[in-house]
Amino acid sequence: MKLGKILKQIGEEMASREERGRVAGYIPELAAIDPHQFGMAVALADGRVLSVGDADEPFSIQSVSKVFTLALALGRYGNQLWRRVGREPSGRSFNSILQLEQENGIPRNPFINAGAIVVTDAILAGSTPREALATLMTFIRTATDDDTIYINDEVARSERETGHRNYSLAHYLRSCDNLLHQPDWTLGTYFHQCAVEMSCRQLARAGRFLINSSGMPQMISSMRVRRINALMMTCGHYDGSGDFAYRVGLPGKSGVGGGILVIVPGRASIAVWSPGLNNLGNSKLGTEAVEMLAQRTHWSVFG
Amino acid sequence: MKLGKILKQIGEEMASREERGRVAGYIPELAAIDPHQFGMAVALADGRVLSVGDADEPFSIQSVSKVFTLALALGRYGNQLWRRVGREPSGRSFNSILQLEQENGIPRNPFINAGAIVVTDAILAGSTPREALATLMTFIRTATDDDTIYINDEVARSERETGHRNYSLAHYLRSCDNLLHQPDWTLGTYFHQCAVEMSCRQLARAGRFLINSSGMPQMISSMRVRRINALMMTCGHYDGSGDFAYRVGLPGKSGVGGGILVIVPGRASIAVWSPGLNNLGNSKLGTEAVEMLAQRTHWSVFG
Amino acid sequence: MKLGKILKQIGEEMASREERGRVAGYIPELAAIDPHQFGMAVALADGRVLSVGDADEPFSIQSVSKVFTLALALGRYGNQLWRRVGREPSGRSFNSILQLEQENGIPRNPFINAGAIVVTDAILAGSTPREALATLMTFIRTATDDDTIYINDEVARSERETGHRNYSLAHYLRSCDNLLHQPDWTLGTYFHQCAVEMSCRQLARAGRFLINSSGMPQMISSMRVRRINALMMTCGHYDGSGDFAYRVGLPGKSGVGGGILVIVPGRASIAVWSPGLNNLGNSKLGTEAVEMLAQRTHWSVFG
Amino acid sequence: MKLGKILKQIGEEMASREERGRVAGYIPELAAIDPHQFGMAVALADGRVLSVGDADEPFSIQSVSKVFTLALALGRYGNQLWRRVGREPSGRSFNSILQLEQENGIPRNPFINAGAIVVTDAILAGSTPREALATLMTFIRTATDDDTIYINDEVARSERETGHRNYSLAHYLRSCDNLLHQPDWTLGTYFHQCAVEMSCRQLARAGRFLINSSGMPQMISSMRVRRINALMMTCGHYDGSGDFAYRVGLPGKSGVGGGILVIVPGRASIAVWSPGLNNLGNSKLGTEAVEMLAQRTHWSVFG
Repeated sequence: MKLGKILKQIGEEMASREERGRVAGYIPELAAIDPHQFGMAVALADGRVLSVGDADEPFSIQSVSKVFTLALALGRYGNQLWRRVGREPSGRSFNSILQLEQENGIPRNPFINAGAIVVTDAILAGSTPREALATLMTFIRTATDDDTIYINDEVARSERETGHRNYSLAHYLRSCDNLLHQPDWTLGTYFHQCAVEMSCRQLARAGRFLINSSGMPQMISSMRVRRINALMMTCGHYDGSGDFAYRVGLPGKSGVGGGILVIVPGRASIAVWSPGLNNLGNSKLGTEAVEMLAQRTHWSVFG
Repeated sequence: MKLGKILKQIGEEMASREERGRVAGYIPELAAIDPHQFGMAVALADGRVLSVGDADEPFSIQSVSKVFTLALALGRYGNQLWRRVGREPSGRSFNSILQLEQENGIPRNPFINAGAIVVTDAILAGSTPREALATLMTFIRTATDDDTIYINDEVARSERETGHRNYSLAHYLRSCDNLLHQPDWTLGTYFHQCAVEMSCRQLARAGRFLINSSGMPQMISSMRVRRINALMMTCGHYDGSGDFAYRVGLPGKSGVGGGILVIVPGRASIAVWSPGLNNLGNSKLGTEAVEMLAQRTHWSVFG
Repeated sequence: MKLGKILKQIGEEMASREERGRVAGYIPELAAIDPHQFGMAVALADGRVLSVGDADEPFSIQSVSKVFTLALALGRYGNQLWRRVGREPSGRSFNSILQLEQENGIPRNPFINAGAIVVTDAILAGSTPREALATLMTFIRTATDDDTIYINDEVARSERETGHRNYSLAHYLRSCDNLLHQPDWTLGTYFHQCAVEMSCRQLARAGRFLINSSGMPQMISSMRVRRINALMMTCGHYDGSGDFAYRVGLPGKSGVGGGILVIVPGRASIAVWSPGLNNLGNSKLGTEAVEMLAQRTHWSVFG
Repeated sequence: MKLGKILKQIGEEMASREERGRVAGYIPELAAIDPHQFGMAVALADGRVLSVGDADEPFSIQSVSKVFTLALALGRYGNQLWRRVGREPSGRSFNSILQLEQENGIPRNPFINAGAIVVTDAILAGSTPREALATLMTFIRTATDDDTIYINDEVARSERETGHRNYSLAHYLRSCDNLLHQPDWTLGTYFHQCAVEMSCRQLARAGRFLINSSGMPQMISSMRVRRINALMMTCGHYDGSGDFAYRVGLPGKSGVGGGILVIVPGRASIAVWSPGLNNLGNSKLGTEAVEMLAQRTHWSVFG
C-alpha cells in the first residue's frame, strides 16, 4: 500500500477513537488543549512530506526539544558531556529525583528531566539565556528550513510558576555541584526551550537531520546522528522506552504536549501529535499511530 | 575494506591487549578459564561464515542462552508471557533483587536473571526438566545446523552448588506466586540451559534466525524476530545496555562466560568471545571488538 | 486505680471489639486460629503475675523469639555480633530484601527477618540444630521457670514448606558470605525457634530478665538488658516501631502469631496476645491494649 | 561518684582527644568554628545546673531547634500534624530526598530536614515569618528563662545562599502539595530557626520542659512531653538513632553545629557541644561524652 493511503487510514482510525488518554494537567496552558486533535507528518529522504489530520496545528513540543539541545551540547562538548550525565535507561518516571540521590547527582540520561536540565546548563556556559535560546532556535529553524518557529512565552512563564518538581531537581543538581548556574537561570532557559511550538509538518522536517541520508540537512556528524538515535531508542520514552522499542522498533522522543518525533534511519522522519497521554506520560494515540505506521510500512530498525 | 581483513585486524589488536578484564569468579569452572583467548565469527546473510582467533573454541554461553529460551517461550505463550515479566530496561545489575520487591515479583525484563528464571519456568510447564532441555537443544541445534552442541554438566552442577543469588531470586518469585515450580526444579533447568557450550562459529550460526533475511533459518515469525532484537537492544547488556546501544548501535546479548551474540538485521549474526569481563559483567574485549567491527563496517541500525 | 482492675477493664473492652485485624495467612497452622481470642498478663517486679482473658492459652510466639536468640548471641559473641548485623531501624517491612542489596548483605537490625536469620546462624556455630534449639529452650524455660514450654513441630514444618521469602533472604545472605551454614540448616533452626508456643502468663514471666530489677532472674548483664530494650524500642515493631514508641512509650517485640512482649524497665514484663494483625503485621488489639495499659498506669520510659 | 566530679572527668578526657571529627563544611560560618571546643551542662530536676568546659560559649543549635518547633506545632495542631509528616525512623541521612518520592511527599518524621521544613511551614500558617520566629523565640526564652537568646542573621543568610539541598526538598514538598507557602518563604523561616544560638547552659535549661517533673517549666502537656521524647529516641539522630539508643539509652536530638540535647526523664536535661561531627553528622565528642555520662550515672530509660 502507498504511504499516503496508510496515513489516511491511520488518520481515520484515530479520529474514531474514544479513549484518547489524559491531557497533561500540570501546566495550565497545556491543560486547556482540546484532546480531540490528531496530526501526523512524514518527511521522506526524497524530500517529500506527507501528512494527515491536524498536521499544521502548532503544539508545545516540550521534551522533544531535548533532542535538539542534546545535538547542540554534543557538538560543543563531545564526549566530555558524559562526565555530567549518563547514557542508561532510568527505569523511573521522567521527573524522578530518587536516582539523583543514589547516583550522586549524575542523571541517568539526557532525556529525563534531570539530565535535560544538565544539558541545558551546559549549553548556557558563556552565554546569556537569550543567546543560548537564540542558538537553539537557529538550529531548529535551520533544520526545519522555516523561520516562523517560535517560543510561546506564556507557556514558559506558566511552567516557571508551577514547575516545583523541576526546581527541586535543579537545586539538587546544584547541591551536587552538577549545575554551573543558579537554578533559576538554567530553568528559565529550560522552560523556554520546552515551550517551542511546532506543527507536525515542521517537526517532521526538523527531524530530517537524524535520518542520516544524503540530501538531508547535515547539522551534525553521521556518528553523532547514530548515537542520538541510539539514546532515543533506549531512553526516549522514559520508563516506556522498552515497550516503545518492542512495539514500534524505531528511535523516538516524546513530549508531554503530546508530540513524538520518530526516526526511520535512512528513510524518514515522523512527527505525530495527539494531546492525550497514557499513564507513562507519552501520547496515547500518537504511540498507537506510530505503531500502526511501522507495521504497515514494515519500517523497523530490527529487521 | 573487506570484512575478512577487518576481522584479521581486530584479532591482531585484541591479541596485543594487556587489559583484558576479569574472568567471572563465582563459578569455579569459569574461573579457571585462560583470559588470553579471543575469538570472533560473523555469519553473513549470504551464508558465508568468517572468523578470527579462537573462534572454534567452545565456551559456556551462559546468559546468551536467554535469547533462545525467550524465543521458545514467545512461540508457546505469545503476549501472555508479558503477564509474568516486563519489557523495560532495569537500570540495575543482572542479579538485582531490589526491583523484584518494588515491583511485586514481576521481573523488569526477560534478560536479567529474575526474568530469565521466569521464562525458564514457563517453558517447563507440562514437561520434565529433561524434556524442556531437549526441546531447547533441538532449537539451538536446528538453528545452528549442528548436532554436536552439548550441555556441560559439570558447569551446571557447579552453579547449582554456588548459585545462592539465583536461589534467592527464585524463592522470592515463588513467594510472589510468579514461579510455577519449586525453585530447585526451575533452577536445575536454568543452570543447565546456561551451561550450553558453543564456539563463536556455532553461536554466530545459531543467531542467524534473528537476521530476518530470506535464505536464513526461519524459526519464528518476522514480527517476533524484530521484537527479540528490540529487547536485546534495550535490555541485552543489563545496566550497560544504553552504553552498548550508544557505542555499537546493534542489538546484542552478553553472557558471563565472556560471549556476546550481536545481530545486524538483514545482514549478519556476530559472535564474539573473550573471557575477561568489564565492571558491568560483559566481555571487555568482546564489547570493544564489536564496537570496532561496527565502526569499520558501518553496520548500525541507527543510520 | 489498681492494676487488676485496669486489666479487667481492658479485657472487657477488647472482648467487645469488632475490628480485630487479620490473622496471618501465610502459615496454614496460624491461619486457622480463632481471631476472637485475647489475653494479657503482667509479671511485676515484686513477683506477682496478673492476667486477664485467654492468658493461659498457648500461642506461637514467632518473632518474639528473636529477643531470646539475641540475648544468647550477645552472650556468646558480645559486640562482635555487630559485624554481621546492624542496630538501626529499617524503615521497611519485616521481610524486605531490598535493603540487603543496598547494604551488601548486612541486615539493618536483629529483629527484621534477615537479621534474625543471621543471629540464628551465629548461635548455630559449632552446634547441631538440635543442640542449638536445646540451648534456646533451656534459656526460655529457665527465664520462665517452667519446663513445659515446647516447640510446635507442625508449625515449624509448615513454615519450612511455605517460607519462600525466608529462603530468599537466607540464600541472599549466603551469597554475601553472611551465612555460615547452608540456608536449609539455618532456616530449619529458625523455623523451629519461631514455633515455640507460650501463653501470655508464660511469656510475661519469660520477659522478667529484661526488667533489670533485683529479685528478677538474671540471665544477662544489666548493660545487655538495657541494650536489648533499646533495640526493642527502635526496631521491635518493624516499620511501626516509631509509632509504637510514640503511642506506648515502652520497648516491645511483636510476633506474627499475634503476641507482643513489652518491658517496663524496673517494674514489669507484659505479654499480650490477640491473633488479628494490623497492616504492619503487629497484633491490632494487642497494640491497643498495651497502649491503654501504659496510659492508665502511667508507665512510660519517657517521663 | 558525684555528678560534678563525673562532669569534670569527662571534660578532662574530652580535652585530651585528638580525633575530634570534622566540622560541618557546608555553611561558611560553621566551617570557621574552632574544633577544639567542648562544653557540657546538666540541668537537674532540683533546679541546679552543673557544667564543664566551654559551657557558656554560644553555638548554632541548628537541628536541635526542631524540638522546639515540633512542640509549638503539636500545641497548635495536635494529631492533625501527622497528616503531613510521619513518625517513623527514616533509615536514611538527614537530607535524603529519596523517600519523599517513594512516599509521595510525606516526610518520614519531623526531625529529618524534609519533615522539619513541613513543621516550620505549619507554624507559619496565618503568620509572617517575623511573627512565627517571634513566637518561637518567646517559647525558647521562656523555657530557658533567659531573654538574651538570639538568632544569628549571618548564619541564616549564609544558609539561604548555599542551602540547595533544602531548596530541593522544599520544592519537592510543594510539588506534592505538602507545603502551604512558597519554598523561599518557608525556608527563610527555617534557616532563621536553625540559626538560633545558645550555650550549653542555656540549652540544658531550655530542655527542662521535657523532663516531666514537678517544679520544671510546664510548656506542654505530660502526654506531649512523652511523645516528643519518644520521637527523639527513635528519630533524633537520623540514621544513627538506633546506635544512640543502644549506646546512650536516652532520647536526644543533635544538630549539625555540634550540639546535642539529651533528656533524662524525671531527672535531667543535658546539653553537650563539640563542633566536630562523626560520619552520620552528629557531634563526635558530644556523643561520646553523653555515652560516658549515661554509663557513669546509670541514667538510662531502659533499666
